[in-house]
Amino acid sequence: MTEKPVLFHMPQTRGGTTLWMNEELGDVCEIRLLNLRKGEGRTPEFLKINPMGKLPALQHRGATVTEAAAICAYLADAFPAKGLAPSVSDPKRGVYYRWMFFAPSCIEPMMLDRLGKVARENTTAAGHGDYERVMASIDLALSTGPWLLGDTFSAADVVMGSTLNFATMFGAIPKEGRIKDYVERATARPAHQAMMKKNAEQAKAMAL
Amino acid sequence: MTEKPVLFHMPQTRGGTTLWMNEELGDVCEIRLLNLRKGEGRTPEFLKINPMGKLPALQHRGATVTEAAAICAYLADAFPAKGLAPSVSDPKRGVYYRWMFFAPSCIEPMMLDRLGKVARENTTAAGHGDYERVMASIDLALSTGPWLLGDTFSAADVVMGSTLNFATMFGAIPKEGRIKDYVERATARPAHQAMMKKNAEQAKAMAL
Repeated sequence: MTEKPVLFHMPQTRGGTTLWMNEELGDVCEIRLLNLRKGEGRTPEFLKINPMGKLPALQHRGATVTEAAAICAYLADAFPAKGLAPSVSDPKRGVYYRWMFFAPSCIEPMMLDRLGKVARENTTAAGHGDYERVMASIDLALSTGPWLLGDTFSAADVVMGSTLNFATMFGAIPKEGRIKDYVERATARPAHQAMMKKNAEQAKAMAL
Repeated sequence: MTEKPVLFHMPQTRGGTTLWMNEELGDVCEIRLLNLRKGEGRTPEFLKINPMGKLPALQHRGATVTEAAAICAYLADAFPAKGLAPSVSDPKRGVYYRWMFFAPSCIEPMMLDRLGKVARENTTAAGHGDYERVMASIDLALSTGPWLLGDTFSAADVVMGSTLNFATMFGAIPKEGRIKDYVERATARPAHQAMMKKNAEQAKAMAL
């Protein structure tokens, strides 16, 4: 692929998930830093890219992608030689999607409810259910190990690993048992380490 | 594909999204009805399939998939001849994923906040931001039309169409302008109509 994807990023945002993904792929993206604290997520130009005013965002071959998990799914497909997604005919593709969607649409809202002390009267209506059910699902997800698909690391682990890393860091869920082991395994990967190093350099350069 | 996917479903749940997807594919799944009101989502057997105790869930070729959007993404890939997903090498794959993830991880939590009158102090921390930003994003998503990828209907429209249909039905967002047109276009599809008919028959048979 001759045209490099452009990844709009800022340290200390969900951009970190996609920066990690980029490192797992062997640094295939051009990184463009934005400083949201200086209002660079609120310019008319950027709001055309992402009306959420959020990072990350990705542009590639004329298409714009937002949502960290969507960007990871897209990059895994766009660079198939890296083997970060099961092929579309592989039954594991279903398991891959399952946890890729579960992280942002169940773990994240549950985490926000917990940290914001939101008590829901109706956990049946909420797609993310409640704390206990989300925790039981995470336990099932990590039961196969070492990765979500078993022995093979995939983009779903980038998404789940990032989500659980933040959820434990912010104290929304306890860092113990399978979750602790998984987060430590994920963050010990050379690509995660490389992302952390770049994030620190970027934060320094941006005086964050 | 000789083995039929088994779709666990109940009318009046998010199962409707996947039942619609099944109709778009030409009815490829075996439907297994569960009655959550009778505790059939809380049996030890079902909790092994989905610890969330929720529907839909799908089993196919030894794999279990949950989360309505994940099931739609999986089925679109598993039945490529139906043309409900851009190929993995198509730049539109990124746009497809974008809205497929946006619906359950931004529109749904925003809708729950609005219907539950949850006021967030920190909309920067929330991945789903706030009402205005989500609405601006939906407007961008629908600006290409008639479908999210332009002229081609895809599984992303099943997910977005269902989400917007429910969001307007429950009054979380106003049914007007592009949203009204899109929801009407989506629900007028023969596959959506077939789903509604089956859902009504199922509800009657289950005495819901």
